Amino acid sequence: MIRWECDYAEGCHPRLLEALTRTNMEQTPGYGVDGHCDRARGLIRELCHAPQAAVEFLVGGTQTNTTVIAAALRPHQGVLCAQTGHINCHETGAIESTGHKVLPLPSADGKITAQQVQQAMEAHLADPTREHVVQPGMVYLSHPTEQGTVYTADELTAISQVCRAYGLTLFVDGARLAYGLAAETSVTLPLLYQLCDVFYLGGTKVGALFGEAVVISNPALAQDFRYFIKQRGGMLAKGRLLGVQFETLLEDGLYFRLGQNGVEQARKLSAAFQAKGYPMRYDSPTNQLFPVPPDAHLEQLADRHVWSVWEKVDESHTAVRFCTSWCTTDAQVEQLVADLAGL
Amino acid sequence: MIRWECDYAEGCHPRLLEALTRTNMEQTPGYGVDGHCDRARGLIRELCHAPQAAVEFLVGGTQTNTTVIAAALRPHQGVLCAQTGHINCHETGAIESTGHKVLPLPSADGKITAQQVQQAMEAHLADPTREHVVQPGMVYLSHPTEQGTVYTADELTAISQVCRAYGLTLFVDGARLAYGLAAETSVTLPLLYQLCDVFYLGGTKVGALFGEAVVISNPALAQDFRYFIKQRGGMLAKGRLLGVQFETLLEDGLYFRLGQNGVEQARKLSAAFQAKGYPMRYDSPTNQLFPVPPDAHLEQLADRHVWSVWEKVDESHTAVRFCTSWCTTDAQVEQLVADLAGL
Amino acid sequence: MIRWECDYAEGCHPRLLEALTRTNMEQTPGYGVDGHCDRARGLIRELCHAPQAAVEFLVGGTQTNTTVIAAALRPHQGVLCAQTGHINCHETGAIESTGHKVLPLPSADGKITAQQVQQAMEAHLADPTREHVVQPGMVYLSHPTEQGTVYTADELTAISQVCRAYGLTLFVDGARLAYGLAAETSVTLPLLYQLCDVFYLGGTKVGALFGEAVVISNPALAQDFRYFIKQRGGMLAKGRLLGVQFETLLEDGLYFRLGQNGVEQARKLSAAFQAKGYPMRYDSPTNQLFPVPPDAHLEQLADRHVWSVWEKVDESHTAVRFCTSWCTTDAQVEQLVADLAGL
Amino acid sequence: MIRWECDYAEGCHPRLLEALTRTNMEQTPGYGVDGHCDRARGLIRELCHAPQAAVEFLVGGTQTNTTVIAAALRPHQGVLCAQTGHINCHETGAIESTGHKVLPLPSADGKITAQQVQQAMEAHLADPTREHVVQPGMVYLSHPTEQGTVYTADELTAISQVCRAYGLTLFVDGARLAYGLAAETSVTLPLLYQLCDVFYLGGTKVGALFGEAVVISNPALAQDFRYFIKQRGGMLAKGRLLGVQFETLLEDGLYFRLGQNGVEQARKLSAAFQAKGYPMRYDSPTNQLFPVPPDAHLEQLADRHVWSVWEKVDESHTAVRFCTSWCTTDAQVEQLVADLAGL
Repeated sequence: MIRWECDYAEGCHPRLLEALTRTNMEQTPGYGVDGHCDRARGLIRELCHAPQAAVEFLVGGTQTNTTVIAAALRPHQGVLCAQTGHINCHETGAIESTGHKVLPLPSADGKITAQQVQQAMEAHLADPTREHVVQPGMVYLSHPTEQGTVYTADELTAISQVCRAYGLTLFVDGARLAYGLAAETSVTLPLLYQLCDVFYLGGTKVGALFGEAVVISNPALAQDFRYFIKQRGGMLAKGRLLGVQFETLLEDGLYFRLGQNGVEQARKLSAAFQAKGYPMRYDSPTNQLFPVPPDAHLEQLADRHVWSVWEKVDESHTAVRFCTSWCTTDAQVEQLVADLAGL
Repeated sequence: MIRWECDYAEGCHPRLLEALTRTNMEQTPGYGVDGHCDRARGLIRELCHAPQAAVEFLVGGTQTNTTVIAAALRPHQGVLCAQTGHINCHETGAIESTGHKVLPLPSADGKITAQQVQQAMEAHLADPTREHVVQPGMVYLSHPTEQGTVYTADELTAISQVCRAYGLTLFVDGARLAYGLAAETSVTLPLLYQLCDVFYLGGTKVGALFGEAVVISNPALAQDFRYFIKQRGGMLAKGRLLGVQFETLLEDGLYFRLGQNGVEQARKLSAAFQAKGYPMRYDSPTNQLFPVPPDAHLEQLADRHVWSVWEKVDESHTAVRFCTSWCTTDAQVEQLVADLAGL
Repeated sequence: MIRWECDYAEGCHPRLLEALTRTNMEQTPGYGVDGHCDRARGLIRELCHAPQAAVEFLVGGTQTNTTVIAAALRPHQGVLCAQTGHINCHETGAIESTGHKVLPLPSADGKITAQQVQQAMEAHLADPTREHVVQPGMVYLSHPTEQGTVYTADELTAISQVCRAYGLTLFVDGARLAYGLAAETSVTLPLLYQLCDVFYLGGTKVGALFGEAVVISNPALAQDFRYFIKQRGGMLAKGRLLGVQFETLLEDGLYFRLGQNGVEQARKLSAAFQAKGYPMRYDSPTNQLFPVPPDAHLEQLADRHVWSVWEKVDESHTAVRFCTSWCTTDAQVEQLVADLAGL
Repeated sequence: MIRWECDYAEGCHPRLLEALTRTNMEQTPGYGVDGHCDRARGLIRELCHAPQAAVEFLVGGTQTNTTVIAAALRPHQGVLCAQTGHINCHETGAIESTGHKVLPLPSADGKITAQQVQQAMEAHLADPTREHVVQPGMVYLSHPTEQGTVYTADELTAISQVCRAYGLTLFVDGARLAYGLAAETSVTLPLLYQLCDVFYLGGTKVGALFGEAVVISNPALAQDFRYFIKQRGGMLAKGRLLGVQFETLLEDGLYFRLGQNGVEQARKLSAAFQAKGYPMRYDSPTNQLFPVPPDAHLEQLADRHVWSVWEKVDESHTAVRFCTSWCTTDAQVEQLVADLAGL
């Protein structure tokens, strides 16, 4: 059985486990102030062309989103995001649990636009009863989105300009950032650093056991950020586990190669789905694919493959999600391509 | 200038001020455990045919909604309500500030249906990733709604049955309850007591200076409820001010007559709007009317009348809100009717 | 029976009720942006010699404390206060309900010192694990304190200097401010405005039905403050009720005279207690007195007087609290003095 | 340099890394519903003699404490604990960030007594103003405590009885549970399961890379507990990492042997400290020792050893903390014993 249902079904890239084993009996201070974390910080600063960047490591995505958002907003503020955003749909209200409303904007493909943000702000400012309404204080994007789509450099730049014009914090959730960087080369780490107040490089879905590296360019947000990590339960006692993993992922570009593997394997799969004439629910250039096969085909594939159900489209068709990942092999893809061809 | 923009532009019914003046130098214990509050509690229990009802008094609506909802929900739960619900739109995120997500349901007229609630629960229970999603824990309705519409006894009964089947707390915001009771006689206080876990009789918009009387039928919610009032800043030091007002409103039916005045004056106005051929944005039988006059007419009316703007409908028409209230006079209505006739 | 147990047993000064009656049928906008509130704001700015002060009106003390504190702190910060502070003891965890820890400092008389604040900050900054500890972000004082004691201008100035040196917000709870101003004349409204970031003039305990007037000198805290009031449930629909009351209290010094009445009546009582040889639990120059009579005396007084029990001191003595207030009459005091003399 | 400053300076027991490596490329479902987690659950249920126990895995201690406490309390409730409790001192206000006050009880050695809990409840219930005070809703203990001390079975039984009598949830923080079980054999896992509503077996400090296994006996608390884990950011995507580690720790008693190693090495050290005549700040039978050496001795030891400073005791003496752990070796202990002997 091959599992395509997510990009975190396996453990980690073997080199990370080797590094964890090699460093296992080192004695280091806890909580992410050890040499491994510092070296990983340095690598990220270099990659972002940002020697002054604040870099902190957390364990998981929901934890990171909650910590960043609660740190940035004042109590009466909320966070603008796509209706389909992870923080709006799949975090059991973690953002609201910190007191902040998520302010959803309509989106067909998981993305929002500079114009939508501007309109939301103009509408708020024009409302004579605005003190009775949550004030937008932040924009949250995912790159790639939950739908696998990506922003271009121009789109992100436009959003960043609106955010700065209206005093909004811009936050990019990069849980799958390596796949986005591989698919849309106009967006780079230095550009993200320049445009955002804060973003993160996701490790959990790109070859690490766990771990998200938060990069903060806004000094007001960076101040005391480690207190917030501790308060939200995200300060790992053996913080060096995060440092060791990001060191290994970043010291020679492994992170980016793993992202490329996910995207390249997805391209092969995508071609195979389209060869079967399946419509694609979203036009994703990254490692998540959303074909809409006939249910009869799905039934046959189920002998050897597992995927996740997205939504029922009509009586005989279902949109499904197939994820490739950092560790998808040629053999796995060839098997699925062959099974599709045999339908 | 006559203000029609809301139903809380004046102070209170003169009899309430007289009662406050008459009792002013009495010495009573604070925090709502005095004789006036107790007598008001007794009157409400009688009116609800519910000798065992828990009754508490708070100052305002947002405070009441926040206190009730935060008292009823566990941390991972949210509250289902119409997209247009007051808690979703006009409380600066007060519900979210207590940690709970508002779960909006689509609504054209401010109401939601038993079927919508049932579908939301079925969708949640059928979701294999439901632990990543906020669990609905409560249904919040307004009667009347923000759009002036009302529920029938049958509609409320159906919603109540669904709530009980799925373990949802049912909460009716009665900020304008007297207008709802006057407009839709199938809904009565005893019925509300039977169907809901908790509801309130709004005073602020029906002749009191301020004050909302919360009636709780669910004993688990009633337990320790006064701690919640205190914690949320809603426990008035001179609580007897609430008792004196509700005593006066309820001892001889004044509350209900004030509601009837609002509805009757609105009926006259509504006839006048319709005589002019204005469409009505919502079909409201209560004290809020939403005509859509030509902008040219509004311009002329502005010499003598104030209303609130609801939304621009097209280039030359605007939906507006005219509220009558407990103290709208025949003379005020006649003036507006005359001014309309003269357009 | 004469109630000495608190200073909010009666309604309000008759002139306030007259003003409420006189203005009752005026139509005004809601939520505190009417002419009465604006006039009251102007009077407060004049009294504080602070034309630029932000002034807002809330209904009660717990609500005000919660709103101010949650507005001023970032999530990882807490508020330093005397162990006996109202926010630490008698608000059902309202501060914690907004996510912030109350950081109590030992206090024998309800007051804290500049040195204590400085030591707390130095200890925090010197702690190598300080990211695991709540960061002090504010100092909360009451003037007078819960024990009836007051700060001198020198003491407040010293605390203010420490707060500014360490970036702490200074907040003075003035629920009984008029009594403090009457008792300790070195502290004035202009001085409070200069030394604090925010303080309030309490109305509930000094002749109003309800109402606290918050004065904010720190522009960063003033920004968007009305959103916070709404979010915490403190924005009164008929906000003009607060404006009318503070207008009346402040336009000719009534507020200060009411404070003086409380203090003067307390002085007479205090002399009588001391004439009986009762020790005083705290050395209070304001309207709250804490004598420690023999229980046998209390038993006899109970025929005609009510007070509140503070704490059992030994087998035969109890510290009790007697409050005078804005409306304590000569006759009431004479009765108690006579009853004491007769013991 | 040998680090004695904490018990989480190294990675994990080599067998855990081997198991993680062996299972690394398995494809499993995420979020702790895989076979490894289920097997670990089964082992814990067996060890607790509790086939019906709910068992969930979280990453770290602060996260676990926050998730459990926020799940158990209603909004107006707080948690009783020793003044020195981890949740009161070293979690950056994580508990308060969920809205709940920590209610500290005085403690000289990190422990609290059944009598203290009973008195706190009696005082609360006897207080006529108790609705203005946070209601105790839970008792939080650590076993061992932050001071290394342990409860006996009798002490825990007495606390559990008081908790049940007053409806308090009993929660035991077992971050260092293996050391407690090794030191005080009257307390066993089945006993903890019977006495507590919830407790946990800490992995982070006993041989795991990270991980805490929460055991819930109270069905009301167990209901929907996984929603809380997700909401608080504690649901690890690759949950099987927790399962694999606890499987390995528990399948043949490794967890308990690691606890014994910590305790035995500590006993040798303790004898050496006492041979030098150092007073012990706390009488700890577990893996944390708190000797009070002369500062001159500390200066000499600093060439080869690192510890943490507890508190300055007098001008020439400092209480310090030396921790042994699951991986402290005979050689390390012998080195320190020799260095002590040479002073």
